[in-house]
Amino acid sequence: MKATPINSLSKLCIHTITHKPWSLREVADNFARVGVSGVTVWRDDLAGTNPVEAGKLLRSRGLEIVSYCRGGFFPAKDASDRKSAIYDNERTIDEAAALGAPLVVLVCGAVPGQSLAQSRRQIVDGINAVLPRAKEKGVKLAIEPLHPMYADDRSAVNDLKTANDLCEEINSDYVGVAVDVYHLWWDPRLEVEIRRCGRMKKIFAFHICDWKTPTEHLLLDRGLMGEGCIPIREIRSWVEESGFHGYNEVEIFSEKHWAGDQRDFLDQIVHAYREHS
Amino acid sequence: MKATPINSLSKLCIHTITHKPWSLREVADNFARVGVSGVTVWRDDLAGTNPVEAGKLLRSRGLEIVSYCRGGFFPAKDASDRKSAIYDNERTIDEAAALGAPLVVLVCGAVPGQSLAQSRRQIVDGINAVLPRAKEKGVKLAIEPLHPMYADDRSAVNDLKTANDLCEEINSDYVGVAVDVYHLWWDPRLEVEIRRCGRMKKIFAFHICDWKTPTEHLLLDRGLMGEGCIPIREIRSWVEESGFHGYNEVEIFSEKHWAGDQRDFLDQIVHAYREHS
Repeated sequence: MKATPINSLSKLCIHTITHKPWSLREVADNFARVGVSGVTVWRDDLAGTNPVEAGKLLRSRGLEIVSYCRGGFFPAKDASDRKSAIYDNERTIDEAAALGAPLVVLVCGAVPGQSLAQSRRQIVDGINAVLPRAKEKGVKLAIEPLHPMYADDRSAVNDLKTANDLCEEINSDYVGVAVDVYHLWWDPRLEVEIRRCGRMKKIFAFHICDWKTPTEHLLLDRGLMGEGCIPIREIRSWVEESGFHGYNEVEIFSEKHWAGDQRDFLDQIVHAYREHS
Repeated sequence: MKATPINSLSKLCIHTITHKPWSLREVADNFARVGVSGVTVWRDDLAGTNPVEAGKLLRSRGLEIVSYCRGGFFPAKDASDRKSAIYDNERTIDEAAALGAPLVVLVCGAVPGQSLAQSRRQIVDGINAVLPRAKEKGVKLAIEPLHPMYADDRSAVNDLKTANDLCEEINSDYVGVAVDVYHLWWDPRLEVEIRRCGRMKKIFAFHICDWKTPTEHLLLDRGLMGEGCIPIREIRSWVEESGFHGYNEVEIFSEKHWAGDQRDFLDQIVHAYREHS
């Protein structure tokens, strides 16, 4: 089965960071105007706003709050720093609950010079430490495997197999995976591991964007769907065949797109979503 | 077993591109002056020089020619372009033989928008097509798995498992692998696949440098050993335990280091080689 083209916006979710120049109110008004259905809220974009009020604002425009980005960054060389990370993740879970987001996405963390295996141990410990709060608040956690180019200081979880293995080890209904095509598209085992993730009922989120050639910045040069080489529709077909029927979340960090008119960019996203996702 | 610190320069090889500002004669004179033992010659650095003469020059300074970089780039959408790549690789093998290099390193290639699986098929076809020339000239070929951030247009071989699988499929004494810490350090299966590569007698080369935090350019911001987070000595221990006793090849593309005084940089390399490799 090939995924069919997308004919409605009922599963289109956009991350607030994709329109970084906009305030939360501009996000709410413009997403509603063009028919976007869901929104994932970045913690930075909430700064200074009461999350309860932010949730009300977004829902008042008919938007579903899909997830809250992001928690994580559990590893640290110093035990007091790991404790501080746990405190911060509990606060993030509280904010997600106040906002009305059912999911927190985890960028798990890594420490330059500490072995990745050691960082993964600390990630498991950190997730286990915050699990009681997640259950109490009814907020799930998604481990997001990050591209290997972020293995130095952002995440020691760099492919889907590793994320699946960690889910298996933690073994909680509250912990699953965020599958992001940008991070995972290159992996020869991607289809196999997506199907495994689906069998485990661990696909909690699906993120899309594109990989440009050339990519001029490791972090801030992601492409709009269709601008790059990722077989997004094929990967979506694997995810859907594996039982995931949630949102397709557009998450684009791009200084180029941020520098342009955001209403034009939103129109481009909606077009690209139908044509290239 | 942990790899022991390095106490001599008898296995130190440096790639000519590491000192891009230098002519081949400056490379030869300066490497000899500080006691470097081997050199890997980049094709660009040979431009305009007769490879037989270049080989004589380098050997006259006591340098062993370790390999010739680089062949590859086999995949292409158009059949005539793939044929052209085969012709070019045969010429590269001829040049390596004329130079006196026993090995050509392959950056295998990829085509944005073509599936990586399809590119890997074309890579196998390309290597098989040039194998007769490699045998005729007595020049071996090393598949170099490249970091996943180069999967768009540089290589569809992005981890050691994939390179090992391709070697197994091609099944020729003339085809093995170049293990480069920069491309592979993040992989949770690296130790297992290095040992497998060793059992197959396929470790043909070992390249070192470091991964800096932050890395500011996808291609031209590699670090000197010790400037980053790669566990170089640990990876070297796995390679040596797997039966590899060839050169440790320093391959650093860095606009920052190229902008500095090259004699100072060479001194830093020799120091970092003893301290951090």
